[in-house]
Amino acid sequence: MHVAIPLYPRFTALDAVGPYTVLAFAPDVTVTFVAAATGAVVDDVGSLALTATATYADVPQPDVVLVPGGPGTLSAMADAALLDWIRQAHEHSTWTTSVCSGSFLLGAAGLLQGRRATTHWGWLSRLATVGAEPVSERVVTDGKIVTAAGVASGIDMALTLLALMRDRVTAQAVQLAIEYAPDPPFNAGHPDVAPAELREPALRLIGAA
Amino acid sequence: MHVAIPLYPRFTALDAVGPYTVLAFAPDVTVTFVAAATGAVVDDVGSLALTATATYADVPQPDVVLVPGGPGTLSAMADAALLDWIRQAHEHSTWTTSVCSGSFLLGAAGLLQGRRATTHWGWLSRLATVGAEPVSERVVTDGKIVTAAGVASGIDMALTLLALMRDRVTAQAVQLAIEYAPDPPFNAGHPDVAPAELREPALRLIGAA
Repeated sequence: MHVAIPLYPRFTALDAVGPYTVLAFAPDVTVTFVAAATGAVVDDVGSLALTATATYADVPQPDVVLVPGGPGTLSAMADAALLDWIRQAHEHSTWTTSVCSGSFLLGAAGLLQGRRATTHWGWLSRLATVGAEPVSERVVTDGKIVTAAGVASGIDMALTLLALMRDRVTAQAVQLAIEYAPDPPFNAGHPDVAPAELREPALRLIGAA
Repeated sequence: MHVAIPLYPRFTALDAVGPYTVLAFAPDVTVTFVAAATGAVVDDVGSLALTATATYADVPQPDVVLVPGGPGTLSAMADAALLDWIRQAHEHSTWTTSVCSGSFLLGAAGLLQGRRATTHWGWLSRLATVGAEPVSERVVTDGKIVTAAGVASGIDMALTLLALMRDRVTAQAVQLAIEYAPDPPFNAGHPDVAPAELREPALRLIGAA
């Protein structure tokens, strides 16, 4: 099973590396980071670069497409090479997936028309602008398209996806291997539970306010 | 506040990128990935490289040291340049921290003698071999040393650390920004709750069986 994760300038590192770690730890799964050109791609904060080891042309038909989000999504929505690759890869993929604002790239590629999908809570209402029906859930599956909410939700999405791609036992073994028994010191990960006054500061941190 | 994360061959990507994302999203925190030489460092799976942008010599006195783990830890325990850097950086650090088997590197640098510390559940009992008192908790704080359990626990550790470095409001704002409201599809992230037959497969996935 071959998973391709496209990287573009100012992606959010955890959007890519959370699901990557879940999927790449599974037996017989290969993950390739792709971009317009091979080499280092710098993230949203500007202090971490991940290496793309293949171009879009090198990986035209992965089994799984996994598109990360980040503040760079807005510019990437005008990146024809990226959108063309997503669109063409989706024609043959078994699963087409996204994390955070990555769903806007699926939408910009024309894949979300009339589809249920999700994204980061700060951008959810805007997801309708790319034709999707926004759904406030952590992981949303509509046919072969699986979208995740903000950043850290990609880990939950990848475990769900791995169970779909393979089986529940494999997904649970990976969860145990990476000790994903989350125990956040605070209960502030979603606007439904976080103190209301944190909403604006949080949006500023992700460049959405 | 300056955080330095050392990279060494066959580190586990999420050990580094989980805490990185939490800390780097906070205002006025700079994170630098360091290594013996600048350039790409390849992870445990062999399919992801992160770029070290500074050498150990470039960052002798970070405020925070954050050491990731991974299957490469065993070799890294014999890496004098890395251990010397950890030992010297610790002399001036405000916080010295680790994720997963990264605590073995703190131990190999001589920092855990008689200290309470933790690591991945699969290696916990062996932590005594580097002088530590192994503690089966997700995040363990002993003085200025903060150690986290396996891989994904680094996110919980970083939120705890950010609250200590700064304040609870900042940590909660980051938690909301990265939508860290975890909702794993399975309850299998720790041997206390996972089906017993998953233990050996999970250890094989991390190269510990």
